[in-house]
Amino acid sequence: MANPSFVMQKVLDVSFEDRPVPKLNSPHDVRIEIKQTGICGSDVHYYTHGAIGSFIVKAPMVLGHESAGVVVEVGDKVSSLQIGDRVALEPGVPCRLCDHCKSGFYNLCADMKFAATPPYDGTLCRYYVLPEDFCVKLPDNVSLEEGALVEPLSVAVHVTKLADVQVGSTAIIFGAGPVGLLCCAVAKAFGATTVVAVDLVQSRLDLALDLAATHSFIPQKGDSPAESAAKIISLLGGKQPDFAIDASGAAPSVNTAIHVLKQGGHYVQAGMGAPEINFPITEFTVKEITAHGSFRYGPGDYQLAVALVASGKVDVKKLITHRVKFEDAEEAFKLVIKGQGVKILIEGPAPAA
Amino acid sequence: MANPSFVMQKVLDVSFEDRPVPKLNSPHDVRIEIKQTGICGSDVHYYTHGAIGSFIVKAPMVLGHESAGVVVEVGDKVSSLQIGDRVALEPGVPCRLCDHCKSGFYNLCADMKFAATPPYDGTLCRYYVLPEDFCVKLPDNVSLEEGALVEPLSVAVHVTKLADVQVGSTAIIFGAGPVGLLCCAVAKAFGATTVVAVDLVQSRLDLALDLAATHSFIPQKGDSPAESAAKIISLLGGKQPDFAIDASGAAPSVNTAIHVLKQGGHYVQAGMGAPEINFPITEFTVKEITAHGSFRYGPGDYQLAVALVASGKVDVKKLITHRVKFEDAEEAFKLVIKGQGVKILIEGPAPAA
Amino acid sequence: MANPSFVMQKVLDVSFEDRPVPKLNSPHDVRIEIKQTGICGSDVHYYTHGAIGSFIVKAPMVLGHESAGVVVEVGDKVSSLQIGDRVALEPGVPCRLCDHCKSGFYNLCADMKFAATPPYDGTLCRYYVLPEDFCVKLPDNVSLEEGALVEPLSVAVHVTKLADVQVGSTAIIFGAGPVGLLCCAVAKAFGATTVVAVDLVQSRLDLALDLAATHSFIPQKGDSPAESAAKIISLLGGKQPDFAIDASGAAPSVNTAIHVLKQGGHYVQAGMGAPEINFPITEFTVKEITAHGSFRYGPGDYQLAVALVASGKVDVKKLITHRVKFEDAEEAFKLVIKGQGVKILIEGPAPAA
Amino acid sequence: MANPSFVMQKVLDVSFEDRPVPKLNSPHDVRIEIKQTGICGSDVHYYTHGAIGSFIVKAPMVLGHESAGVVVEVGDKVSSLQIGDRVALEPGVPCRLCDHCKSGFYNLCADMKFAATPPYDGTLCRYYVLPEDFCVKLPDNVSLEEGALVEPLSVAVHVTKLADVQVGSTAIIFGAGPVGLLCCAVAKAFGATTVVAVDLVQSRLDLALDLAATHSFIPQKGDSPAESAAKIISLLGGKQPDFAIDASGAAPSVNTAIHVLKQGGHYVQAGMGAPEINFPITEFTVKEITAHGSFRYGPGDYQLAVALVASGKVDVKKLITHRVKFEDAEEAFKLVIKGQGVKILIEGPAPAA
Repeated sequence: MANPSFVMQKVLDVSFEDRPVPKLNSPHDVRIEIKQTGICGSDVHYYTHGAIGSFIVKAPMVLGHESAGVVVEVGDKVSSLQIGDRVALEPGVPCRLCDHCKSGFYNLCADMKFAATPPYDGTLCRYYVLPEDFCVKLPDNVSLEEGALVEPLSVAVHVTKLADVQVGSTAIIFGAGPVGLLCCAVAKAFGATTVVAVDLVQSRLDLALDLAATHSFIPQKGDSPAESAAKIISLLGGKQPDFAIDASGAAPSVNTAIHVLKQGGHYVQAGMGAPEINFPITEFTVKEITAHGSFRYGPGDYQLAVALVASGKVDVKKLITHRVKFEDAEEAFKLVIKGQGVKILIEGPAPAA
Repeated sequence: MANPSFVMQKVLDVSFEDRPVPKLNSPHDVRIEIKQTGICGSDVHYYTHGAIGSFIVKAPMVLGHESAGVVVEVGDKVSSLQIGDRVALEPGVPCRLCDHCKSGFYNLCADMKFAATPPYDGTLCRYYVLPEDFCVKLPDNVSLEEGALVEPLSVAVHVTKLADVQVGSTAIIFGAGPVGLLCCAVAKAFGATTVVAVDLVQSRLDLALDLAATHSFIPQKGDSPAESAAKIISLLGGKQPDFAIDASGAAPSVNTAIHVLKQGGHYVQAGMGAPEINFPITEFTVKEITAHGSFRYGPGDYQLAVALVASGKVDVKKLITHRVKFEDAEEAFKLVIKGQGVKILIEGPAPAA
Repeated sequence: MANPSFVMQKVLDVSFEDRPVPKLNSPHDVRIEIKQTGICGSDVHYYTHGAIGSFIVKAPMVLGHESAGVVVEVGDKVSSLQIGDRVALEPGVPCRLCDHCKSGFYNLCADMKFAATPPYDGTLCRYYVLPEDFCVKLPDNVSLEEGALVEPLSVAVHVTKLADVQVGSTAIIFGAGPVGLLCCAVAKAFGATTVVAVDLVQSRLDLALDLAATHSFIPQKGDSPAESAAKIISLLGGKQPDFAIDASGAAPSVNTAIHVLKQGGHYVQAGMGAPEINFPITEFTVKEITAHGSFRYGPGDYQLAVALVASGKVDVKKLITHRVKFEDAEEAFKLVIKGQGVKILIEGPAPAA
Repeated sequence: MANPSFVMQKVLDVSFEDRPVPKLNSPHDVRIEIKQTGICGSDVHYYTHGAIGSFIVKAPMVLGHESAGVVVEVGDKVSSLQIGDRVALEPGVPCRLCDHCKSGFYNLCADMKFAATPPYDGTLCRYYVLPEDFCVKLPDNVSLEEGALVEPLSVAVHVTKLADVQVGSTAIIFGAGPVGLLCCAVAKAFGATTVVAVDLVQSRLDLALDLAATHSFIPQKGDSPAESAAKIISLLGGKQPDFAIDASGAAPSVNTAIHVLKQGGHYVQAGMGAPEINFPITEFTVKEITAHGSFRYGPGDYQLAVALVASGKVDVKKLITHRVKFEDAEEAFKLVIKGQGVKILIEGPAPAA
C-alpha cells in the first residue's frame, strides 16, 4: 500500500485502507513518515461512541494524533527542517488569521484542523503532511517512542503553565492517568518541591511516585471532599497546596481540590467527565481562588515538552506499558477499552518499500 | 450618651447601648466620629440569622461597616490625616505580618479584624478607631453620604480589577443589586464600552441603564442557561462578552455566564448564595475560561473607589433610595428585609455635645 | 494611470510612476483603493537620508504607510469584508509562522513585510493588497481621514498598553509630536486622571492640553534632569507619576522621566533619536523601575485604535493641520521637513476612472 | 561584654563596643544571638567611603547585615518561632503602612529600617532584635553558615524572579561576584537550561561553572558590545538569550546584554556602579526589551532562598572562601578590600557566658 491508514468506518468498526499519499499544500509544508503513535482516550472515545460533544464522526476517519516520524519531503520554503529529520508532530493547525491565533492563543482558534477530530483525518497512517512550524525536531537523545509521548506531555505542559507554579511550591494533582502523571512530572520540573498525587488506584499512584510525586493519597470511600481535604492537609503537616490540577474530570476530585487549596491558590481543570458537576462556589469565592480551564496546547508547549524530555527532567518512557505493530492497531484500542496499561504505542506502519 | 451604639443582642433583637469611647491602640491610629453608614446585606443576614458561614454571633455586636465620618483624634505618629478631615472608613484591618498581608493580598489575611463580623464590633456608633492607612480622606467634592458608599464601591472595584478589563471590551454583569450595579459602573469606568446588566427585576435594570449599562436582559422563565446565553449573544449582534461578573450568587446566572463568555474569557464570582451549585465544567474547560473568586477588597481599592467618585466616573448617589436617622436604625434593617430600596443610609448619631 | 504611485527614486528624488495593479496573492487577500494617507517621520527620513538604521533604500520604493481606503476586490475566502467597505490599513504583515507571531508578538517578527520599509513598497498609490485580517473596517461614524490616523494612534495604543495604566493614575508623556500627543489621549482613555505633557514648544503643549493633557511642562534651559523632575513633582503637588512615556527620543527627556517616576513606576520608550544615550542606571535600579521598549503595534492594537476613535475617546482630527492632493505629495514632504504642521494628509489619488 | 558590637566610628576607623542588649519593641519581636555574618560590598563601601549615595554615615554604626543566629527571647505574641530556633535574619523591616508595603513591594518602602544602612545599626554584634516574620527558620539540614548566605541568595532570588524565567530558557549573567554567581544558580533552579556566565576573571567563571553555569565568556579587550554579543551568540550556536541579568554594574556589560538579547527579551539590572552610563536605547526599543531595576528583596524571597538551599538546588557553601572570628572582623574587611576571596564569613561573637 502507498499510504496504509487505520480508518474508523463507524462505531467499533475499523479497517485498513490505502489512502492517497498526501501532497504538500504550501511551500512551508513537510511530509512525514509516521513511526510511533500513542493511543489517547479521545481516539478510543470516538471509536466507542462516535462523538465527543459536538464533534461527531459522520464519515470514515483515520484515527490517531500522538505521533512521531521522519521527514521525507520538504516544501520549497521550508528552512527549519530537512529530509531525514526526526520530529514530533503537533497535530492541530490553526487558521493563523483570527484574533486568538494572532494574540498567542491559537489553541482557542475556531477553525483549528485537528488530527482525528472530525472531519479531519488522524495520523495512524504512513504519511502525514504538516507545516514545518508544527513539527518539532527531536534531539539525538530523544527517541521516536518518546517523540510520540510529546503530545500528552504538551497537554501537561499547557495545564501546568496555567497553574502559576512557583519554585518551592506545593502541588496536588487529581487523577493519575497519562495526563495527570505527566502533570506531576511537569509540576516538579517547574519547581514544585511537594507534589501530591491523588487517585483511587494504588498502582497508578506508585507510578506517580516513581515518576515525580512526593506524596500519594487515596480518598477513603464515604469521605466528603472537605474530609478528604482535611486528611491531605494533615498528610502535608498542615500545609495547604499552592495549586491544584484536576486531570480526572471527576466531581469529588474537583470539590476536594477547591477545599484543599490555600487562600488565593490556583486551580486548573484539565480532565473532562460529566458536562456539569456540583461545585463549591462559596469556598471558591471566599478563598479568592483563580481557576483556569485548559484546552489542548499553545505556543511553545510542544517545544518545551521536547526540551523537558531531552534534558531528562521528565522521563516519559516510564508511561509506556505496551507496544503493538501498526497491523495490530485494533488490539491497542481494545487494550485501552479494557483499562489495561498506561500508554500504548503503535509502531509503524513498516517503512515504505 | 458618650458613644451611642446600635447593638445586635441576638437574632432579631437590637438595642442602643452607651459603649465606652474607644482609645487609640497605636500611635498610627485615629478616632473617627461616624456620620453616615450604609446597610449591607451581610449586616442584615447577621441580624436575621445570627451567622454567615462559620462566623457566628455569640455575643452582643455593634452592627454596620459601610461608614464615613470625621477625624476627631489622631495618634502621635499620624502623618496623613488631621482633626477635621472627612474620611471613608475601610473597615477591615489585617495582621500586616502574614504572607498574604506582605505579598499584596491583605484581604486574604486569616487574622483580619473586620467591623461587624463576629467577634468584632461594627461602625454603627458615634466613635470608631482605625489606623490612619485604613481611612481614606474624602476630597472636597465628595460628600459624607458618598463616602459611606465607598465601601460597596470598593467591593465592585476589587471584583472588576480581577476581570482583566480591556478598553473597548464587552462586559456582562449578573445581578443588579448594589454590588452588581456598581460593577456595571466600574466596568465602564475601566473602559468597557458595552455593558450588559442581567436581572429578573426591570426596575433594577433601569437603574443599571441609568448608571452605566448599555444593554439589559431579563432571562425568560424556562430558558436553559445555554438558551439565555444564545439570546444575549443575539442581543449583542453576535458578539460574546469578554468578561462576566456574577453579583447574584444564583446558579442560573453562573451557568449563563459561562455559556455566554467568549473562548478565553474572564469570569469573576462576587455574589454568594448557595454554598454549592451545578457548574458547566466542560464548557468552562474547552473555552479555557479564567475564573476568580473575589473577596472583600485589597490594596488600593478604597483609594481608587474614592477617585472614581471624585472624578465623576461613578455616581454612587443614584443608589441611595432611603435615609434614616441613627435612632431609627432598626427601621432601616426592616426596609432591607422587605426588599425595599437599593441602598439605605443611616445618618448620625447626632454630633457629640 | 492604472496604479499611480509616489515613488522615491533616491534621496530627495521622487516621481510618479504607473505601477501594475497588484494581484491578490492569497484567497484571504483584498485589494484596497487608497483614499487618505498621513506622512510619518519615517517616510520623511527615508526621503531625506535613504535609510533608517539597517533598512537602506537600494531600489525605487513607493512611500507612505498611514492609509485608509475602500475595498475594491476580495479573495475567495474573505469573510470579514466586502467590496465597498471602508478600512484602515495595518501596513505590516508578519510571517505568521515564527515563535513571535504565534505567541502574540507579531510586531517582533523578523520576516515582517512592512509598507515603505525597504525593500517593500508603501501605500502612496492607488491600489494596495493586504490580507483581510490586516484591514480594520471603519464604522460609519469614522471618516477616511480619521482612518489614516489610525496608524499613529495604533503606535500610541501599543506604547500605552505597555505602560500598565491603572485607572486613576498619573502619567507623564515626553514629546508632543503626533505619537506623544496621541499617547496623552490614549493614557487618558485608559484611565489616567492626571496627564502631564512635556515639550519645548508651547504650541504643541497647547494642542496636548486641548486633546487630553491636564498639565504641561517646558523644561528650563540649563536645568538638570533631576532639577526638571523636582519642578514637575512640585507642579503635581508632590505626587510622582506612576508611569512615563518618552515619545521624543531625546536624552534629557529619558533622564528626566527616570528621575520623576515614583518607586516601582513604569516607563516606555517610544521615541527614537540617538542610538545611544546617557542613562541614569542607578536611579533606575534603586527605584526598581520597569522599562519597556515599544516597537510598532501588535494584536488588537489597530482594532482598539479604531474603537477609541469611534467612541469619541480620542479625537484624532485635532492633529490634522494640512491636507494636500496626491499630485502634490512632494509638497507634503517638504512641509514636514520644514517642521510645519502636526499631521499632514495626502488625499487620493483621484478615483479610478 | 553584654552585647559586643563591631562599630564603624568613621571612615576606616572601627572598634568593638559593648552596646546595651536590645529590648523587644513589640510582642511580635524576637531577640537573636548572632552566629554567622557574611561581609557584603556595601558594608565595605561604608567602611571605606562613609556613604552610599544619599546614605551617609554620620554617627557610629554597627556594620553587617548578612547574618544567621539562634532565637534567645520571644515576644508574647510570637507564634512562629521559639527559643533555640536557628534562623536567617532578613535585615530590613518596612513600615507596613504605606502603599508599597501593602501592595506587595515592601522593598520599595521609604521608611525601611535596614541593618547597617545609616542611621540603623547592623548585625555584627551579639544580639539583634527583629519581628518574627523577618526571621526565617532554618531546616535541620541547613547550617548557620548557609543561613548567613541566605541574604545574598535572596538578592539573587529577587533579581531572577524579575527576569521572567521560563523552563528551558537561555540565560546570561554578567558579573561573577557573589550575587552574579548566585543568580546563575537561581536561574538554573528556576528552569533555565543554558546559563552563560560573563566575567573578566577566569577563576570566578570557574566557580560559576562549578556552581551552575553551562557556558562562560570573557569579553576580549577592545571588542565593542555588539562584537562581544556576536561572539556569545556564536558560542550558543546562534541562539540569543531569553533573559539577561547584569550583576556587574559595568557599562560594557549592560551594553553587551542589550545587544545579545533576543527580540522581546527580559533584562534585570542588579549591579550598581556609576550612577549614569551610556545605554543603547535604540536597540532596546526596536527589540521591545523589558528591563527591570532590582532592589533588595521582597515578599517570599527569603523563604524561597532557604528552600533552595534546603532542597539542594543551590549550594551556597561553594562561595565561602574565608572564615574569621568575630574578634578579627576588621581583617575580614581588609581581605575584601584587597579583592581576596568570594564570600568571607565572620563567626561569633563567642556565645554569651
